[in-house]
Amino acid sequence: MSRRRNRSKRKNLLTSPGTLTYVGPEIELHTHLKRVRYNEHFQEEKIIHNLTAFTEPDHPSGKQPHVTWLDVDGIHEPKVIEQVGQYYRLHPLLLEDIMNTEQKPKVEAYDDQRLFVTLKMLHLDNPNTLDLNFEHVSFVLGPRYLLSFQEERTGDIFVPVIERLKASVGKTRRHGADYLLFALMDVVVDNYFLILEKFGEQLDALEDSIISGAGQESLSELYTLKRELTFARRLIWPLRDIINQLIRDDSPLISPQVLPYFRDLYDHSMQAIETIDAYRELVASLVEVHLSTLSNRMNEVMKTLTIFSAIFMPLTFIVGVYGMNFDYMPELRARYGYFVVWGVMVAITIGLARYFKWKKWM
Amino acid sequence: MSRRRNRSKRKNLLTSPGTLTYVGPEIELHTHLKRVRYNEHFQEEKIIHNLTAFTEPDHPSGKQPHVTWLDVDGIHEPKVIEQVGQYYRLHPLLLEDIMNTEQKPKVEAYDDQRLFVTLKMLHLDNPNTLDLNFEHVSFVLGPRYLLSFQEERTGDIFVPVIERLKASVGKTRRHGADYLLFALMDVVVDNYFLILEKFGEQLDALEDSIISGAGQESLSELYTLKRELTFARRLIWPLRDIINQLIRDDSPLISPQVLPYFRDLYDHSMQAIETIDAYRELVASLVEVHLSTLSNRMNEVMKTLTIFSAIFMPLTFIVGVYGMNFDYMPELRARYGYFVVWGVMVAITIGLARYFKWKKWM
Amino acid sequence: MSRRRNRSKRKNLLTSPGTLTYVGPEIELHTHLKRVRYNEHFQEEKIIHNLTAFTEPDHPSGKQPHVTWLDVDGIHEPKVIEQVGQYYRLHPLLLEDIMNTEQKPKVEAYDDQRLFVTLKMLHLDNPNTLDLNFEHVSFVLGPRYLLSFQEERTGDIFVPVIERLKASVGKTRRHGADYLLFALMDVVVDNYFLILEKFGEQLDALEDSIISGAGQESLSELYTLKRELTFARRLIWPLRDIINQLIRDDSPLISPQVLPYFRDLYDHSMQAIETIDAYRELVASLVEVHLSTLSNRMNEVMKTLTIFSAIFMPLTFIVGVYGMNFDYMPELRARYGYFVVWGVMVAITIGLARYFKWKKWM
Amino acid sequence: MSRRRNRSKRKNLLTSPGTLTYVGPEIELHTHLKRVRYNEHFQEEKIIHNLTAFTEPDHPSGKQPHVTWLDVDGIHEPKVIEQVGQYYRLHPLLLEDIMNTEQKPKVEAYDDQRLFVTLKMLHLDNPNTLDLNFEHVSFVLGPRYLLSFQEERTGDIFVPVIERLKASVGKTRRHGADYLLFALMDVVVDNYFLILEKFGEQLDALEDSIISGAGQESLSELYTLKRELTFARRLIWPLRDIINQLIRDDSPLISPQVLPYFRDLYDHSMQAIETIDAYRELVASLVEVHLSTLSNRMNEVMKTLTIFSAIFMPLTFIVGVYGMNFDYMPELRARYGYFVVWGVMVAITIGLARYFKWKKWM
Amino acid sequence: MSRRRNRSKRKNLLTSPGTLTYVGPEIELHTHLKRVRYNEHFQEEKIIHNLTAFTEPDHPSGKQPHVTWLDVDGIHEPKVIEQVGQYYRLHPLLLEDIMNTEQKPKVEAYDDQRLFVTLKMLHLDNPNTLDLNFEHVSFVLGPRYLLSFQEERTGDIFVPVIERLKASVGKTRRHGADYLLFALMDVVVDNYFLILEKFGEQLDALEDSIISGAGQESLSELYTLKRELTFARRLIWPLRDIINQLIRDDSPLISPQVLPYFRDLYDHSMQAIETIDAYRELVASLVEVHLSTLSNRMNEVMKTLTIFSAIFMPLTFIVGVYGMNFDYMPELRARYGYFVVWGVMVAITIGLARYFKWKKWM
Repeated sequence: MSRRRNRSKRKNLLTSPGTLTYVGPEIELHTHLKRVRYNEHFQEEKIIHNLTAFTEPDHPSGKQPHVTWLDVDGIHEPKVIEQVGQYYRLHPLLLEDIMNTEQKPKVEAYDDQRLFVTLKMLHLDNPNTLDLNFEHVSFVLGPRYLLSFQEERTGDIFVPVIERLKASVGKTRRHGADYLLFALMDVVVDNYFLILEKFGEQLDALEDSIISGAGQESLSELYTLKRELTFARRLIWPLRDIINQLIRDDSPLISPQVLPYFRDLYDHSMQAIETIDAYRELVASLVEVHLSTLSNRMNEVMKTLTIFSAIFMPLTFIVGVYGMNFDYMPELRARYGYFVVWGVMVAITIGLARYFKWKKWM
Repeated sequence: MSRRRNRSKRKNLLTSPGTLTYVGPEIELHTHLKRVRYNEHFQEEKIIHNLTAFTEPDHPSGKQPHVTWLDVDGIHEPKVIEQVGQYYRLHPLLLEDIMNTEQKPKVEAYDDQRLFVTLKMLHLDNPNTLDLNFEHVSFVLGPRYLLSFQEERTGDIFVPVIERLKASVGKTRRHGADYLLFALMDVVVDNYFLILEKFGEQLDALEDSIISGAGQESLSELYTLKRELTFARRLIWPLRDIINQLIRDDSPLISPQVLPYFRDLYDHSMQAIETIDAYRELVASLVEVHLSTLSNRMNEVMKTLTIFSAIFMPLTFIVGVYGMNFDYMPELRARYGYFVVWGVMVAITIGLARYFKWKKWM
Repeated sequence: MSRRRNRSKRKNLLTSPGTLTYVGPEIELHTHLKRVRYNEHFQEEKIIHNLTAFTEPDHPSGKQPHVTWLDVDGIHEPKVIEQVGQYYRLHPLLLEDIMNTEQKPKVEAYDDQRLFVTLKMLHLDNPNTLDLNFEHVSFVLGPRYLLSFQEERTGDIFVPVIERLKASVGKTRRHGADYLLFALMDVVVDNYFLILEKFGEQLDALEDSIISGAGQESLSELYTLKRELTFARRLIWPLRDIINQLIRDDSPLISPQVLPYFRDLYDHSMQAIETIDAYRELVASLVEVHLSTLSNRMNEVMKTLTIFSAIFMPLTFIVGVYGMNFDYMPELRARYGYFVVWGVMVAITIGLARYFKWKKWM
Repeated sequence: MSRRRNRSKRKNLLTSPGTLTYVGPEIELHTHLKRVRYNEHFQEEKIIHNLTAFTEPDHPSGKQPHVTWLDVDGIHEPKVIEQVGQYYRLHPLLLEDIMNTEQKPKVEAYDDQRLFVTLKMLHLDNPNTLDLNFEHVSFVLGPRYLLSFQEERTGDIFVPVIERLKASVGKTRRHGADYLLFALMDVVVDNYFLILEKFGEQLDALEDSIISGAGQESLSELYTLKRELTFARRLIWPLRDIINQLIRDDSPLISPQVLPYFRDLYDHSMQAIETIDAYRELVASLVEVHLSTLSNRMNEVMKTLTIFSAIFMPLTFIVGVYGMNFDYMPELRARYGYFVVWGVMVAITIGLARYFKWKKWM
Repeated sequence: MSRRRNRSKRKNLLTSPGTLTYVGPEIELHTHLKRVRYNEHFQEEKIIHNLTAFTEPDHPSGKQPHVTWLDVDGIHEPKVIEQVGQYYRLHPLLLEDIMNTEQKPKVEAYDDQRLFVTLKMLHLDNPNTLDLNFEHVSFVLGPRYLLSFQEERTGDIFVPVIERLKASVGKTRRHGADYLLFALMDVVVDNYFLILEKFGEQLDALEDSIISGAGQESLSELYTLKRELTFARRLIWPLRDIINQLIRDDSPLISPQVLPYFRDLYDHSMQAIETIDAYRELVASLVEVHLSTLSNRMNEVMKTLTIFSAIFMPLTFIVGVYGMNFDYMPELRARYGYFVVWGVMVAITIGLARYFKWKKWM
């Protein structure tokens, strides 16, 4: 529950727009800065402790051009973000968007030299509860550099890409910063599918439990699933437009060789959204199945009640008749009266049982 | 209830269009006019009591250009609105839109020199009842001036901006009237989030109460929440188009430096609408959960009834049998007949209890 | 009920298209023709009895240009419509559209000199039943004249405009025939709001009755309300496109000075549609509240039944036990047997009452 | 049921596309060909028995141009269709579309000289069951000729147009083949309204029966109505696009004089679709009313049961008490014990009756 | 259930994009390559065992141009796909799309000389369970060649086209590789209709069972049907855009003579989607009918219960009264008391029976 409340936390109304304020959950860790530089011939990784040290440019590869990737792990310290912003001359509103974990995904071309992309990384805090959480991830793509910003919460999510860069002179190292942007966004999108797989498993389990008619509390689980799907959809949906815009805008920062990769990413994001939509539709259908199961079960209970009542009420009446104390009741004196009454009661019972069998209530 | 009735109040049919009529709730207070003038070097605030005095131009800052902001607090006095309109040469239909509290939000460029924007400010009269109310707010942006019009009801909503103007030579004072328009609209939009936060809290409470299966009157509360969300959506939705139009129209009144701020505002308005849509979807899902809870509870009641009936009806029948007064009933004479009957009844009870356990009704 | 049947009445299949046929309800009255001529300096109104007399042009204001408005009150006499059509050289299909009360609202520019607009006027036959009825209204706007056609049923609906023309040299008389078209359409749209107000009141009443849980027959009333709202929406919806087309088409017949008034009318028509949509949504939500109320009430009934049964069935069983006639039943002989049984029964009753209290069924 | 199965019958997968195959219901009749030729001065109708005879051109009107209309009544004989196709040099795919009764409505301009239109004619096989059936109708419009193709099932549907051509030198004979196309399409669309009228009557009947709360099997009737409306909508919907395309495409085959008639047809097709949509919405609302009626009725049944149980269970318990056989039961010996018990029972009954009255259950 | 899990299988996150990985179900068979070459004068089919042999060009028809069709049956061996890709110089991402069975249908023009199309072939694994499965099919259209790739699972689906090529010098052999692409896509689309026919039959069966009120487990069947329809729709839907793009893109690879065939294919794909949509709508309506049937049945059960209770409760009370053991109960001594009581009970029974008849409960 607390999640939603956090999310709607807002800046002080007295703060003027463009003021850097971190609105996400409180964090006690320090921001980690890691600089990776590479081209086809070398690859170098450096943890940056001192921000002033960072600002000293060093060209390890002599005059050969290389890609610089600055990975900022932690966006809760305005001072750090501001310093990075000053070094790369970023617009204050852009810095605000980097820190504002409430900012919805978007792409913005601040000028021909700068492309700003912000996304949401999804992860499940607890794999059993489907309690979806997200991390705010931003990128600034420059001519030969890429800045990435992520929340300091679940460890560096870009480790796989760093590993690939180290491992060999693969595609990533042959291409420029634009390909690196693609590779990092691809990690984010691939992650969506891991989440969707979890959702799919949960949906399968609910489907089984509902169709077999077992689950009592199924509907609140369906509700939770639907809520998280809706939440995921809202975060993933803008991605489609973002990648589409990257493809169409014909930005000089993205080379034609890398465009097919973004088109591929577009397909994947579409696939994620379609999967979510299909899941949502299934959830809606399962709600119907569940409600009908409830009705069916009620019908069964009612039939049991009705059969018991319909059989025993006449019998109880009959025995009541012969429990009356009238002075003159001829049957009571009859030799086989008692047995005749039993016979009548058995006949009534059989008759009613047949009737309910015929009605398919038994 | 009275709210809706008020809202549909309309001008007299005999009145020709363009005649100034105030259709909002009746107000006894007088209109307050406040003029704020500022540039980077000075800031001055003046309450205007006499409207003729107002019309005297005074240039306190010598020849230096400055921004004039006239804040009209109260739109129920046609005379006042008319006077302001004459001074700034505003179209009669524009004045009508300023006073018509029923007017839906819109932006209109009357000529290259004048931009008219009208919005709805939302506030809750009573924070406990979610009874949403709105205030009609209009702006006229001119070359170096901004007119703002608001209903005289809940105090001046633009106080935070005035405070910021006074406090320091911040962004607001460095930019022109276009930035001021942004800042005021930002106050309105930020307010939406305060309202949405309240709605979110209410939704959380309802979610808890419904999923735990407690609330009896939950549905009418859900209904009220949905109605107010629908109402809020209708008022906020046009804002998206308004800001979009401001961004795209390339009006000479809005400088390129201020455009990014409007884009930011656009994002915020989109976020507000998406939050409302997500809430509405959750409400719809909660209705389903609630109905299913009702069915579940009914099932439980029915099962209890059925179990009681199914157990006691046969027993009552049996004791009825031996309450009959037939002369010849061999069992009655049997030494342990009474205890045998008890044995049979206990057996039946155990049998039925097991059957209902197996059926998972107990 | 008969209403819908009337509406689908169609021309004879053997009739060739363009043949004038009146398909509305049968009317016994005669068509009234009224000619109003005015400019800033004079205003003249004349009932036209003889159609041939009408065809004589007379220029009362000398050589000064004036606006001629011919108001045809009654569209059931093909002869009259044909004569008017011949005088103004109107296309046969246009005349057919004027007479065809089934024709949906539209605007058509037959040539640069002629603009054809047809609308639906809404009114309630009986203010208590919400039984919506409509009247077919058409306009032909020419260079300096306007023809208006209305059904002869509820009296002349344009009386307010005639009054305004008479009353003073207001906006209407200063502008041309285009403003007159606006003024008449404005009357039609203002009327929509009167209808919507009625709907709103009815909705308020239903909301109160349903949320308080009173109404038994609420749903059929909700159904009627929804049906009439759907019906109204179908008639009002095209208006939006019509006015939009008038604004965008840049017709030489509509002067730039009058355009803002049409934009205003556009806003009003949008507002009417949005109000209808909001009402429809509320009706849909109220249906849910109503169904949930029914379920709640059923739950309450079932609980009452269950409590009665659960308490009296065991008691009846117990007294039945001691009504048995076995020769040997030790309890019967016990001195305080009777009182012990009473004690047991009171204990059972208290126990069950507590159980149901704990279950919140009582 | 068999209807849907027929409809999905498909060509053999081994057949290459463009091979003429008739997939509609099997028909034993022969194709009828009728040639009508007319202009303002003459009109001639000829049944064509021998297809080779048909190919002999004869110009009865000397050198005067005339319109030739070839009406092919029956599309199940590939040989006939092929011969006609050869004579008029029609594309094989076009012939396939003429014969393929599954082909959905469309318009196609094969070259500047040929316009192909295919529609669905709707009719009810049995006016009582609403079992909608359709007939595949195609037109080929050439410079001065029109070919029409219809299924040989329900007689010639174009008889009214032939009658009009014979009757007098009306609009149809004064215009070219384009007007003839309009006239024939108009017959098809007018037919839709006859069907919709039937649907409207059925809907009225269902509305009455459901609101009065009578109908038990109403929902399956509503379902059938909805299914047929959905079916009709799918067949009529493309018509809108077809006529729109005819109007916009600016084909040289359709003269400007005839365009207004097609615009009129467009309006009518829109009206048909809107009527269907309104009906579908009403059906959906009636389903809700029906379900609520069911709930209401269940409530009533439950109340009756509860009242009976609540009143008689305590009474039965009381009389049970005094049916016990304890040796010592002081009340039994009391002189007026019996009457006191009766008094108590009457008091209980009155008390409960008042309670249920107060609860509005009686 | 396992189906969905398979489908969401994804590449290893550490794999760089563009690496060929097969993600479909595991397959043990080897890839089959078949090369078909034909023109109007010859037709030749060759199974290719050795991939290097394949790369030797042989021109059996001398200098006459011919179409080469390479059918790759099996996409699970990256080595084979890579070799084919190298020979025809295909982009690595294109090869990835060929092997990625999760890739959604799309068309892509890699350059003027290459058109890439990927589709889903649908088939039912088990005709009784409606468990829809799909096969990933891709095409690469080059100037005079066509490559087709399909999963090695259900045998070669293009056999019908090969048969047609062999059988005679039909349309397929007269046209180029573009017509071959059409013919193969046509096979895929025709297959959709076979599937839809199965769905239609299942829907007919469910409709019958639900309207007759028989089926208990109908809703879970409806759910399965809806799920598979949703699944089919997601796979077929993109086809519409693909064919549309092929038609509009004006690719030099598709000749104007073949365009009408693609337009025909477009119509068919639209028809498939519309059929699915109609089925989905029917399923939704049937759910409503089913739920109402459940309610109706419950009503019937409740009525039976209520009638039994209402009749026997008073009777049991009456006989209970005369079972009381009061010393002084005058009726007990009456000569015909017993018979009078019977009379009263019969009268009550008849009265209640009439009452319930009047209420239409019996």
